[in-house]
Amino acid sequence: MDLLKIKDPSFLKGLSIKELEALSKEIRQFLIEKLSVTGGHIGPNLGVVELTIALHKCFNSPKDKIIWDVGHQSYVHKILTGRACEFDTLRQYKGLCGFPKMAESEHDVWETGHSSTSLSAAMGMAIARDLKKENYFVVPVIGDGALTGGMALEALNHIGHEKKDMIVILNDNEMSIAPNVGALHNILGQLRTAGKYQWVKDELEYLLKKIPAVGGKLAATAERVKDSLKYLFVSGMFFEELGFTYLGPVDGHNFEDLFENIAYAKKTEGPILLHVITKKGKGFHPAESDKTGTWHGTGPYKMDTGDFVKPNKKQPPAWSSLVSETVRRLARDDDRIVAITPAMPVGSKLEGFASEFPNRMYDVGIAEQHAATMAAGLATQNMKPYLAIYSTFLQRAYDQVVHDIARQNLNVFIGIDRAGLVGADGETHQGVFDIAFLRHIPNIILMMPKDENEGQHMVYTAINYDDGPIAMRFPRGNGIGVPLDKELQNIPIGTWEVLREGEDAAILTFGTTIPMAMKAADQLEKLGISVKVVNARFIKPMDENMLTSLLDENMPILTIEEAVLQGGFGSYVLEYAHSKGYYHVQIDRMGIPDKFIEHGDVSSLLEEIGLTTEEVVKRVSVLARKKQKRA
Amino acid sequence: MDLLKIKDPSFLKGLSIKELEALSKEIRQFLIEKLSVTGGHIGPNLGVVELTIALHKCFNSPKDKIIWDVGHQSYVHKILTGRACEFDTLRQYKGLCGFPKMAESEHDVWETGHSSTSLSAAMGMAIARDLKKENYFVVPVIGDGALTGGMALEALNHIGHEKKDMIVILNDNEMSIAPNVGALHNILGQLRTAGKYQWVKDELEYLLKKIPAVGGKLAATAERVKDSLKYLFVSGMFFEELGFTYLGPVDGHNFEDLFENIAYAKKTEGPILLHVITKKGKGFHPAESDKTGTWHGTGPYKMDTGDFVKPNKKQPPAWSSLVSETVRRLARDDDRIVAITPAMPVGSKLEGFASEFPNRMYDVGIAEQHAATMAAGLATQNMKPYLAIYSTFLQRAYDQVVHDIARQNLNVFIGIDRAGLVGADGETHQGVFDIAFLRHIPNIILMMPKDENEGQHMVYTAINYDDGPIAMRFPRGNGIGVPLDKELQNIPIGTWEVLREGEDAAILTFGTTIPMAMKAADQLEKLGISVKVVNARFIKPMDENMLTSLLDENMPILTIEEAVLQGGFGSYVLEYAHSKGYYHVQIDRMGIPDKFIEHGDVSSLLEEIGLTTEEVVKRVSVLARKKQKRA
Repeated sequence: MDLLKIKDPSFLKGLSIKELEALSKEIRQFLIEKLSVTGGHIGPNLGVVELTIALHKCFNSPKDKIIWDVGHQSYVHKILTGRACEFDTLRQYKGLCGFPKMAESEHDVWETGHSSTSLSAAMGMAIARDLKKENYFVVPVIGDGALTGGMALEALNHIGHEKKDMIVILNDNEMSIAPNVGALHNILGQLRTAGKYQWVKDELEYLLKKIPAVGGKLAATAERVKDSLKYLFVSGMFFEELGFTYLGPVDGHNFEDLFENIAYAKKTEGPILLHVITKKGKGFHPAESDKTGTWHGTGPYKMDTGDFVKPNKKQPPAWSSLVSETVRRLARDDDRIVAITPAMPVGSKLEGFASEFPNRMYDVGIAEQHAATMAAGLATQNMKPYLAIYSTFLQRAYDQVVHDIARQNLNVFIGIDRAGLVGADGETHQGVFDIAFLRHIPNIILMMPKDENEGQHMVYTAINYDDGPIAMRFPRGNGIGVPLDKELQNIPIGTWEVLREGEDAAILTFGTTIPMAMKAADQLEKLGISVKVVNARFIKPMDENMLTSLLDENMPILTIEEAVLQGGFGSYVLEYAHSKGYYHVQIDRMGIPDKFIEHGDVSSLLEEIGLTTEEVVKRVSVLARKKQKRA
Repeated sequence: MDLLKIKDPSFLKGLSIKELEALSKEIRQFLIEKLSVTGGHIGPNLGVVELTIALHKCFNSPKDKIIWDVGHQSYVHKILTGRACEFDTLRQYKGLCGFPKMAESEHDVWETGHSSTSLSAAMGMAIARDLKKENYFVVPVIGDGALTGGMALEALNHIGHEKKDMIVILNDNEMSIAPNVGALHNILGQLRTAGKYQWVKDELEYLLKKIPAVGGKLAATAERVKDSLKYLFVSGMFFEELGFTYLGPVDGHNFEDLFENIAYAKKTEGPILLHVITKKGKGFHPAESDKTGTWHGTGPYKMDTGDFVKPNKKQPPAWSSLVSETVRRLARDDDRIVAITPAMPVGSKLEGFASEFPNRMYDVGIAEQHAATMAAGLATQNMKPYLAIYSTFLQRAYDQVVHDIARQNLNVFIGIDRAGLVGADGETHQGVFDIAFLRHIPNIILMMPKDENEGQHMVYTAINYDDGPIAMRFPRGNGIGVPLDKELQNIPIGTWEVLREGEDAAILTFGTTIPMAMKAADQLEKLGISVKVVNARFIKPMDENMLTSLLDENMPILTIEEAVLQGGFGSYVLEYAHSKGYYHVQIDRMGIPDKFIEHGDVSSLLEEIGLTTEEVVKRVSVLARKKQKRA
């Protein structure tokens, strides 16, 4: 059939299992083809083809609420809800979003990007439904990795207690992004091998009720025998104890099995956990045989061989590699270094560290809060924890950074990966808030390097710093290709660096926006305006000496940051100037405006928000002119 | 014995059970007496007298690490580690902290205040111990309420998987602050009634190993029979499934029982969960019979009657009551209003709401993340969730506010209780970061009322606002005693209010610092300086019209906020002025400096950080003089 002609999922109701199997094949072929050009989350989506079809056949979306946890597995859902024709623009500027998006379709009832939110959202919807006396199914679909995120566990505990009607689909592919860790994962493993659900639960409950109640001392023992019998016949006692009815495991690629179990779930009251086993990458050999998570999300690839399309020329090192490999190098001489990642060993390029120091590397699963506070615990014992975490996911550990790390002033090194605009993953993943949510926290050092050479020295600086927490933000992608010094050296805390001298105005910036500033300074020079460019590599503390001398000179200042303007670095410069009584200095700020920034290539996004060389030239021209007038 | 003479817990080793029981009595009497004057967390501490003594007798602190989750139950620990003589200053300025504090004692190995951090900290310490090949016990003590916080569950999942040696003491008093909720609570309830641990686990494991392995189809069934047998004899399968050895339940007021089980735990490898049943308030009748949590933390009381010492004159309404009761009043006419609290129904004064609208009130337990996202889920279905949360605990839900509430622009009303300095609870609880971590989030409205009458109108405004999230911060304690309008009215979003006209300078402030500004204006008038005072009740968005006209007049501005200066309201004013090109206007800011503020009465704290009328007078005098010079 023509996938491009699908308007909504209603057509599925009339299809036979054979036809659905043919459709699955077509959807897989479509995804493999389209994503070979655009890239995207191929592995997760190939794994949920039958499951998504089954959900849309068995439920009535959007009346019934299908909630995609994380959401990168929603491509099949997008195809079935009339968006196949937009896949050429997937994750591109103004194109189809890689996550559920309410503005795209009424079938996207909840937007995601970060993991583990679906159960809480589902609980809110279920409460609303019951208060309004409406009648629909609430169906969160959550992976086994996302299930171990703290907020999902909080929700399980609440839902199981309140007994709201809800059908939780546990999409268990034995790995989230990297292979999963945690005790819950072991429990799921046992369930997977324990064989199919026995369909005896109802009968068993009936039988158990027949056992006469005993009083006195025997009562507890009798209860225990009952529970034990239940445990003998009923799978998933872990979830049963939490108040859920456990169904499964179900073969997530077998329509009959899926239909039968979903039908049973629909008839059953209270919260259900339907355990569905799927295979990530199903139907595309390179993705299906992936053991490490390489095929979780990819760039373009060759459909026939599964080789990734590589850039023609050799790339500078990826930032994640540069940082992790420098930590690894330092770990050879310092036993105290321990690396921690919340489920991102591949993304954070910690595989090398892990293989060299298996006992000093902890992947704690999707558990940012635990990761941060565990790092604090290590630091209390004079260890040197390196917490590798994406900017956007550090948001989950804000309180832990405040309360456990910074308040106790512990030596934790936080590597803030994917800081700044991340591009295709879009608004849920932009790493643009970290400066604003970190710099007001006492005791913290926050820095960002201008290139990978300074980056490696900053890693060295951070590891050697022993007076509290220190964080280094670095962008997604690759370095700019500068040579790397052999020997690592310390960068004095709170020092900036003049990259270019100038008289008429100063640009203070750091990291990814430095090239823009340098280019603008070149252009301004041609216009007769001489601009000082400062690498403000320490965002906190600032180089107060250098800043003071600029203020003393009454130098007009432009700050530039690839981060939100409100409460950001530029605002810090303003605060300093005013707190020292430099009221008259002209300070202008460039950065990300007060709105969520959607997906797209970074350069289009920068253009959209006006973070461009042209804008720098324009702003500095105005400032510098003013200075001339005043002088 | 003389408690004041205790230096460290080593003396416990030589005491008999009889002597320990006598000591327990003395400690209880000491606590009841001392706290009747100072106030403090009487209930939790009376509950852990024997447990704390037992831990210090059986372990060697500080070599062994005893970690107090939340930490408000550490008073007995403080007495046993040489701090009894400081109890007259408990929770007072420069006095004994109500929580563990490294600076006070080497026995305080981890500082707390927020709940659910102890397991992650313990995991970090256990990893450090093993890497350094040291040999000590790690003993986190966590309550049943704190156990359901997401980060504690994340830690359980990780610890159970890694099998690190650790003895988790589950202090189960059947209520955390309010009675507990959640499925885990039900599980604990079953365990409590199931009777004592059978001491057969080792033997059982041995027997089960004797059962010959079966291959083929029977293997799974055989495994299941084994598990079922285990379930028959072993308590706490929920924790066993998570990878812990479960011991208990133990009577937490019986030394023999405690010693026997702790000894067993010390001999057992891997993570242990020792389930100890305690009675909150034990030994003091009014606290022991408390069902609602009134005796969790209190002010002064009469030792004989248990009556609270009440202020002589009638107090204005407590802020929490004012807000919750106004929400309740509005809920009578609006079915869509649902109140949500993460474990603080009493603190947030939601009892009245709960009794009137039992189906529209959700206490989700200590689960701030789930609470926030569940509110978002409700809002997607056109409900009007009211999330009542303390400022300091909202830190736990920062990502949920960004990613789920604000990014989806959902109509959630967040009542930020205990905003500003909270006093006796100290640095872990000061509500001073909320402006800095909220105002950079797009779509959010943030406001603070000047008095309880404006407060009730703001609640009305928030409930009627339907274009995204809206938050109102309000302080701990009582209103200032103004009359309340009968009819509620809408306050136009983003409007400020001139409280006093003036020509020489303007003070922009809101909430608790308004009286200080008004008083200063009076004093300044006598000095011949005329000051405009503005109630900047909308922190975001600001009243840009009013601000622009001040800037146009070149009016010197002083901002005052009881919140961190960095990234705060004053910084927002600076940003606005500079972004509009008003470079020359003198803007000065007062607020909380870049450090953690310890416990003490609020007025001493304000004095210490210079948030005083005198300082306002001083600052305005300087600003106003400058204006005169320029004019």
